[in-house]
Amino acid sequence: MTTQGFVWLVGAGPGDPELLTRKAARVLGDADLVLYDALVVPEALALAPHAQRFRVGKRAGRASVRQETIERLMVQAARRGKRVVRLKCGDPFVLGRGGEEGLALAAAGVPFEVVPGVTSAVAAPALAGIPVTHRGLASGFLVVSGHAESAYGPVLTSLPPQAVTVVVLMGLASRAAIADLLLRRGWPRTTPAAVVLGAATDATHTWLGTLESLAAAPLPGDSDAPGTLVLGPVVSLAAVLAPASSAEPAPAAAARW
Amino acid sequence: MTTQGFVWLVGAGPGDPELLTRKAARVLGDADLVLYDALVVPEALALAPHAQRFRVGKRAGRASVRQETIERLMVQAARRGKRVVRLKCGDPFVLGRGGEEGLALAAAGVPFEVVPGVTSAVAAPALAGIPVTHRGLASGFLVVSGHAESAYGPVLTSLPPQAVTVVVLMGLASRAAIADLLLRRGWPRTTPAAVVLGAATDATHTWLGTLESLAAAPLPGDSDAPGTLVLGPVVSLAAVLAPASSAEPAPAAAARW
Repeated sequence: MTTQGFVWLVGAGPGDPELLTRKAARVLGDADLVLYDALVVPEALALAPHAQRFRVGKRAGRASVRQETIERLMVQAARRGKRVVRLKCGDPFVLGRGGEEGLALAAAGVPFEVVPGVTSAVAAPALAGIPVTHRGLASGFLVVSGHAESAYGPVLTSLPPQAVTVVVLMGLASRAAIADLLLRRGWPRTTPAAVVLGAATDATHTWLGTLESLAAAPLPGDSDAPGTLVLGPVVSLAAVLAPASSAEPAPAAAARW
Repeated sequence: MTTQGFVWLVGAGPGDPELLTRKAARVLGDADLVLYDALVVPEALALAPHAQRFRVGKRAGRASVRQETIERLMVQAARRGKRVVRLKCGDPFVLGRGGEEGLALAAAGVPFEVVPGVTSAVAAPALAGIPVTHRGLASGFLVVSGHAESAYGPVLTSLPPQAVTVVVLMGLASRAAIADLLLRRGWPRTTPAAVVLGAATDATHTWLGTLESLAAAPLPGDSDAPGTLVLGPVVSLAAVLAPASSAEPAPAAAARW
């Protein structure tokens, strides 16, 4: 009897291993092989104790393993009857090539399933105290990649100033170009702007300023770090909604002792 | 000694109780009081066995409990030292008034934390086989509410045709108006369009068609059902990426017997 393999395309969420879904944890716990992105944290991998684990992801556009190789590894393992988890940062279908991987699996006749994750596009702002929508400030939001001007340019130049919250993933390197573009489009110079670095990790850092000061924002260290830009009036709410340094309380059991 | 209460604003994800995060499950397990939206499923509430549970959410714009009442209940319970979970569909900061609730808590001096969830804006398309972004088809996506033309109109009329994937939450009732608006803006009549009903539930149903046929889409039953519109070339991928009727395999333990 041949055992049929299976592939799960799983979102690992924005960084905090507690922000994986319960389903992600279950399929990891049951996996034979995990192929994971560079920024997936060790605590998430620890949820797959029985699996071989290979880091295959890219970082800041530099391939560690070619996309075709990732797809071939998934297909080959599934054909050998393995239970494969492709663990991707954030959500697998938000700027993550999850669609391409799904097409490759379908073309190879390998059964697969997508397990949506918490996307950094919403969670990075949220964890910095910024709701992407808020009554009276923004009734929608736009998510684009900062990787190529050819991609974000036509959209951002057409959008009426402050019509929706703009979230730019992988936007650190292009922050000056994007600020310039929006200012020329007529966005107010004082439009609140944020840069969220390392969301949902211990090393998280949020810069808060305006569209005018964004280009010169003094950002720490590694420009390869995943950075999320958030642009629009909702950013002003961070002044009130940003988490206090006081963390959540101890578990109830302890508190009741 | 006074015990300090605490409020967690928690995203319950798109419907499937396995798509709650591990953190959502933990804080529910430890909660004294859960105030939950109408569409939160019973299996999610079962994660809070020690808590009093009150349904407070709205459905299709009709309030069951007034927003001020929800906020007062949270504040009062926290002041009595309770561990309160405000459990909201999807992500608390995506069209969910989570920001307003956070502001009310901050104004009352109640400590709170946001626990991001899997947003239906990404997961409803994904579970129907539609990646909101895909190389060569869409490098970004726009999320708007279909609730009021005054909100989505200015954005959708400015967007170049097919520039990004458009996701409309609560969009069922406005699907004809939105299709008309985009067609007048110059979107091709053959632009692939989808309506996802009851995403991540057993009753899920996806309609696939075009922008031209969207207005007349024969949609089943309850127009109050949460419906997500997805508009753009990425919708064509559902033909290949939509889940097969064959479900995921049995757990490894069983398969290995």
